[in-house]
Amino acid sequence: MTELRRHYFLDEYCIIAAKRGKRPSDFQSAKDVSGDETVCPFCPGNEKMTPPTAAVYTEQGVSSDGQERISGWQLRVFPNVFAAMVPCPAPATTEWIAQPGQGFHEVIVDSPQHGENPADYAKEHMEKLIQVYRDRYVHYCSNSFVKYVSIFKNWGREAGASLSHSHSQLITLPILPPLIKRELDAISRASICPFCNIVAEEKESCRLIEENENWILIAPFYSQAPYETWILPKRHFANLGEMHEAEGKSLAALLKRALGSMRSLLNDPPYNFMISQLPFSYHLNIRIHPALSKIAGFERSTGVYINSIAPEHAARELRQQLKTI
Amino acid sequence: MTELRRHYFLDEYCIIAAKRGKRPSDFQSAKDVSGDETVCPFCPGNEKMTPPTAAVYTEQGVSSDGQERISGWQLRVFPNVFAAMVPCPAPATTEWIAQPGQGFHEVIVDSPQHGENPADYAKEHMEKLIQVYRDRYVHYCSNSFVKYVSIFKNWGREAGASLSHSHSQLITLPILPPLIKRELDAISRASICPFCNIVAEEKESCRLIEENENWILIAPFYSQAPYETWILPKRHFANLGEMHEAEGKSLAALLKRALGSMRSLLNDPPYNFMISQLPFSYHLNIRIHPALSKIAGFERSTGVYINSIAPEHAARELRQQLKTI
Repeated sequence: MTELRRHYFLDEYCIIAAKRGKRPSDFQSAKDVSGDETVCPFCPGNEKMTPPTAAVYTEQGVSSDGQERISGWQLRVFPNVFAAMVPCPAPATTEWIAQPGQGFHEVIVDSPQHGENPADYAKEHMEKLIQVYRDRYVHYCSNSFVKYVSIFKNWGREAGASLSHSHSQLITLPILPPLIKRELDAISRASICPFCNIVAEEKESCRLIEENENWILIAPFYSQAPYETWILPKRHFANLGEMHEAEGKSLAALLKRALGSMRSLLNDPPYNFMISQLPFSYHLNIRIHPALSKIAGFERSTGVYINSIAPEHAARELRQQLKTI
Repeated sequence: MTELRRHYFLDEYCIIAAKRGKRPSDFQSAKDVSGDETVCPFCPGNEKMTPPTAAVYTEQGVSSDGQERISGWQLRVFPNVFAAMVPCPAPATTEWIAQPGQGFHEVIVDSPQHGENPADYAKEHMEKLIQVYRDRYVHYCSNSFVKYVSIFKNWGREAGASLSHSHSQLITLPILPPLIKRELDAISRASICPFCNIVAEEKESCRLIEENENWILIAPFYSQAPYETWILPKRHFANLGEMHEAEGKSLAALLKRALGSMRSLLNDPPYNFMISQLPFSYHLNIRIHPALSKIAGFERSTGVYINSIAPEHAARELRQQLKTI
């Protein structure tokens, strides 16, 4: 069963992706901070432990013919076995408002090397990862039942990663998610793009951490989490598909520095990395939230986040850290 | 520094409550799942480790004269030393939109007994706790710079509790928080109260877990978290201050059963307990979210929650559990 349920009376959604046979004790064991998995299904040689690949990236390029390349792959993409969205879901409940959870949920294994930290990816590998994000976005964004493509990476158990081998995920949704919808409403009311405005203002502020020809890295004025950072393109464009080649390369370079400075300042913290993009009328943006504080009762019931680190302070420390990298 | 900052262009807020001298290494240590504190500041005898009490509840009643009762207290209330809101904050930053974090942030120590589980509170103690919530709400809700009073309890480290001795918290806000504002917008557009509608519909559904004369306990159709439950009054009223005495008693009874069933089904899970209420034009509601799954990149960037347990299933299991209690 996977279905998208609307809140009783708000424009908010949850996905009920019930696992057959999941028992209360499966949650109880979440209490143990158990060691890492013994056999990693994401490592080379264990390809049979995952569903067949949707795309494999090697030195030679990308293959999407469904045939496994078990040697020499650099990145692999395949459907998530615990999918939040599936291509052909059962009809939804008829009570209240629900719709079938129709869509795609993919895993992108970032690297063949178990234990490699994304902050250590070679420049070329980071460029390839950005290219994979771009390819998968373009692959899905024109699908008739896809209204939104979410690409993200959870790094570390505390940030929600269930396996330690570095991977990203892609989930498509048949609706515009509430956060994005609220952004679009505000954008449509504004005379200039609010993200262009952020770029213009924050580039000159004490919250700028670093910039290059095409991108800025900031600790945003509105920061939900300690050491939260955003990466924004200076040019106004809506998604990775519209990105120029040079912009892709400089994004990879800045992302590597962003992850590197966070890793060394905070001793390899768990984090969520998230790309927000839309087919049009939007300004691509990337957010990195270190998972250093809990989302607790206050945040859950009000939507207001308590952050114990001022972004001005975070920016200063991250800038300092970057001098050593 | 404590200030309330508005999102660059959305009606969303965060609180920057920067701790002087907080260092990156304070977060690094969050990685260690360290044992419990050795000296508990919430235990009887250690009253000097906390700020002076705002209210003390004993057998004899409540005292709010600021004098410490170090023996025989049942519940104690005092300001949070790591306050998200303070009565006299410094003026806010003038960039973008911010306002001083003016308000109150209190700790309510639920019980003098270290290690006592709220599910084990005697009926009379649970009634007293509800009375404290009510008293503190009434105390603050008419204050001229209080627009919202948030009362919640985080139980367990995974749910955000920093000390294991059972306690609740109260934070007042000088704004209506975004989640409540969206509810109010929807309520003002509806012809009948949407919460009254939920009570009417869910009382007859397979998501009803238990009911008594005045309250229902449900696993809501829109459930963000596995085994999430809501407690709703059958009568339409806005806040605990408007609650009749009999309703207070039956709320305590149902809350005890709700916590008890969750504790035994899920082996004492961490959870967030949250009371939503307003001075008027609202329908009081209480939500309990077991903290069994992480809020990760997808949830953070879309506002859509993935839940692996259907509420219909959760309700069935919790009903079953209640037969044994």
